[in-house]
Amino acid sequence: MGARAIHHLGVAVDDLDAAVDTYARLFGAAVEHRATVPDQGVEAASLRLGDGRVELLASLGDDTPVGRFLAKRGPGMHHIAYEVRDLSRELAHLADQGAELIDEQPRPGLFGLQVAFVHPDAAHGVLSELVAHA
Amino acid sequence: MGARAIHHLGVAVDDLDAAVDTYARLFGAAVEHRATVPDQGVEAASLRLGDGRVELLASLGDDTPVGRFLAKRGPGMHHIAYEVRDLSRELAHLADQGAELIDEQPRPGLFGLQVAFVHPDAAHGVLSELVAHA
Repeated sequence: MGARAIHHLGVAVDDLDAAVDTYARLFGAAVEHRATVPDQGVEAASLRLGDGRVELLASLGDDTPVGRFLAKRGPGMHHIAYEVRDLSRELAHLADQGAELIDEQPRPGLFGLQVAFVHPDAAHGVLSELVAHA
Repeated sequence: MGARAIHHLGVAVDDLDAAVDTYARLFGAAVEHRATVPDQGVEAASLRLGDGRVELLASLGDDTPVGRFLAKRGPGMHHIAYEVRDLSRELAHLADQGAELIDEQPRPGLFGLQVAFVHPDAAHGVLSELVAHA
């Protein structure tokens, strides 16, 4: 039970190409995956920084989750994702603890992962994602 | 060169005890270190979540870096810290790349680490910390 690791830090950006370049130059990041996912309104790049991972998220339009975040807060940290073994079991545990869930059931996320988001109000202002390999 | 891993996610919180309890209950976090550091204006708890680490930061006053952050943004993600091998060398590289540094030289951070912060403007809105073991 519980988080096994930080899977990635999600970062909302205005310009995906520029951000990929910045993270490569400054921190030695390498692109692991990149995809445009119209039904989630996002173009995303998953970067490896050694054993760490940063997921850069650019919006496909103003009326998308990332677009609304960028309009309200500007570019910056968007969410933290924890890797878990059994996503359904973790969600049942969170519900049991009274945590406010955005996704009550696992759903397909980016790059073939199963994911569920937990509301920032449940974790002291941090939008938290649970991630499991499908 | 470059980041070797995500060392921790830094989270600003209003109530450190409540946040430690929340992260333990929801995500199975265990306290690794806890300290009050008056000259940094912060009370901090380092939590392990499996192989991951979250650093909870509570302010010791309104006129501190974390106090000002909380007043402006509210509780939530504050910074990401990357582990590096040679901090001085990484800082020289960042300066060479024109990145805006908050700390141009390594300085003592929390829990015995050597640290340096990189301005959010350098990394698409993300306050980034480089961490090395002393």
